[in-house]
Amino acid sequence: MREPPTWIAVDWGTSRLRAWAMGPDDRPLEAQASEAGMARLDREAFAPTLAALLGGWLDPARPRDVVICGMAGSRQGWCEAPYRTVPVPLSGLSGHLVTVPDAPAGAIVRIVPGLRQLSPPDVIRGEETQLAGLLALKPAFAGVVCLPGTHSKWAEMVDGAVTRFATVMTGELFDLLAHRSILRHSVDDTAWDQAAFDAAVGDALADPARVSARLFGVRAGALVGDQPPAAAIARLSGLLIGQELAAVLAPSESDRPVALVGASRLTALYARALDRMDRSVTRFDGDDLVVAGLSRLRAAARPHDTVQRETVR
Amino acid sequence: MREPPTWIAVDWGTSRLRAWAMGPDDRPLEAQASEAGMARLDREAFAPTLAALLGGWLDPARPRDVVICGMAGSRQGWCEAPYRTVPVPLSGLSGHLVTVPDAPAGAIVRIVPGLRQLSPPDVIRGEETQLAGLLALKPAFAGVVCLPGTHSKWAEMVDGAVTRFATVMTGELFDLLAHRSILRHSVDDTAWDQAAFDAAVGDALADPARVSARLFGVRAGALVGDQPPAAAIARLSGLLIGQELAAVLAPSESDRPVALVGASRLTALYARALDRMDRSVTRFDGDDLVVAGLSRLRAAARPHDTVQRETVR
Repeated sequence: MREPPTWIAVDWGTSRLRAWAMGPDDRPLEAQASEAGMARLDREAFAPTLAALLGGWLDPARPRDVVICGMAGSRQGWCEAPYRTVPVPLSGLSGHLVTVPDAPAGAIVRIVPGLRQLSPPDVIRGEETQLAGLLALKPAFAGVVCLPGTHSKWAEMVDGAVTRFATVMTGELFDLLAHRSILRHSVDDTAWDQAAFDAAVGDALADPARVSARLFGVRAGALVGDQPPAAAIARLSGLLIGQELAAVLAPSESDRPVALVGASRLTALYARALDRMDRSVTRFDGDDLVVAGLSRLRAAARPHDTVQRETVR
Repeated sequence: MREPPTWIAVDWGTSRLRAWAMGPDDRPLEAQASEAGMARLDREAFAPTLAALLGGWLDPARPRDVVICGMAGSRQGWCEAPYRTVPVPLSGLSGHLVTVPDAPAGAIVRIVPGLRQLSPPDVIRGEETQLAGLLALKPAFAGVVCLPGTHSKWAEMVDGAVTRFATVMTGELFDLLAHRSILRHSVDDTAWDQAAFDAAVGDALADPARVSARLFGVRAGALVGDQPPAAAIARLSGLLIGQELAAVLAPSESDRPVALVGASRLTALYARALDRMDRSVTRFDGDDLVVAGLSRLRAAARPHDTVQRETVR
């Protein structure tokens, strides 16, 4: 690397650890990644794991800011960054970064807090930073943000604040049904029938309350009607994604913009299903939002940070 | 046993094999059961398994009728009894019993066919006999029959016929979510909070299309609001059962009678949830219906049977 990083951005989730060496203009100079997710680590393992990944980016003679989002800040993680309760103005998160006491030499490590909602109860950890990044890129954004994944997260943003959010377990449900339920006998995970997906999304949107009574049809369609495994897996996916969209997006608010985050094949399926609902969708890259969010939160926290550094020294 | 059985009734499902020695008046004299369900058996194992269970009930010198319902009649079972397509007058099923070619000595074995529905695709195997039994006990019954289980079955009965039916995977979904999903960290399978169940049924019935977005709350309720594991498991159950009832029972048909089959703890939960919907429910014992159904089907098949016996001899 030609120049030493000004600071380091880190996304430390359940299954992955990713880090970006950041330049003075908040642009990534270089990236590192490892499979050392929070789920694999004891508390004592976080500091050496981070030191090993960041390696040459750190200089004990000149400590650098490291700002982390994700599950590393959970109670079971490295150092708890307590949830902030919605509604939360995202700019205010920068005042609640938690400084890690056992940072590796050459690093001043702070963790971004997650968000919680009291009713209905829900939690987010990691995605709040992507939401802050979205506001950094589109300051005037107001609407609904969809972050597809094993657990999809949906957030409502108004005037720079997260007003409410929802977690939908669609990805995990799909995985359990496709691989561990009786439906596994009828699906082929390596195949895909796009028309079957589209039709299933349509069925789910037309009658979302009946989706639970249609799941067994993924198997029965093979027994009764020669439905091929490629259609079965796509139908299962379409029913569950359609059910999620119907649960989260009120038809009465059909003119509200939707921001869709991610570049995965899964995100493409959500885009296709949203298109079927005639929703206006803007897509964002997930990594761009992580980096933009951490940059924004660090920039806003800078005065506070200066005080902390003096205390630390 | 004081008297030899006139015939033998058998329910041979995926996980269990049960048999009743029947008297001349179609009342059970004695019962046997084993864990030798269809899922554990190769095709060649069915005849010796049945012979071993029936033991002293069989007399090679005087062959007896054995009438079987359940998965033993599936393609992967002992001898396929092809599905009949709804609408199916249940009395007509007796004309489609399939005689097993490799019956044990002293037994003339016939299997009851299952039912299939082309759209939406669905299948039943075993429950059709309970439905025939219900009609034997209540010949004028017209309405909806609910048979809770790992896969709940719902059937609409009109004029002695099954007009349509639905399978809902609620029991399997509950098991996967409670034991294999992220929710497992928050539930206690050995505890129960009845008020939490009731409230969750109410939530699901009030807004069934949003149940999928409430499942993660079973975990988040523990993280955010100290929801105890006993409430979490009951809430998960209530959300899924409420979702099933909303999917299957149209509010516009709220005056149609519901017959609820079974004596299990699960059936009691369905009764409680149906009560919340103000549905008029009549309960039936599942074993009573199996025996009554096999008796009815055998009685109606008797002339055909005589022909078959002559052919066999």
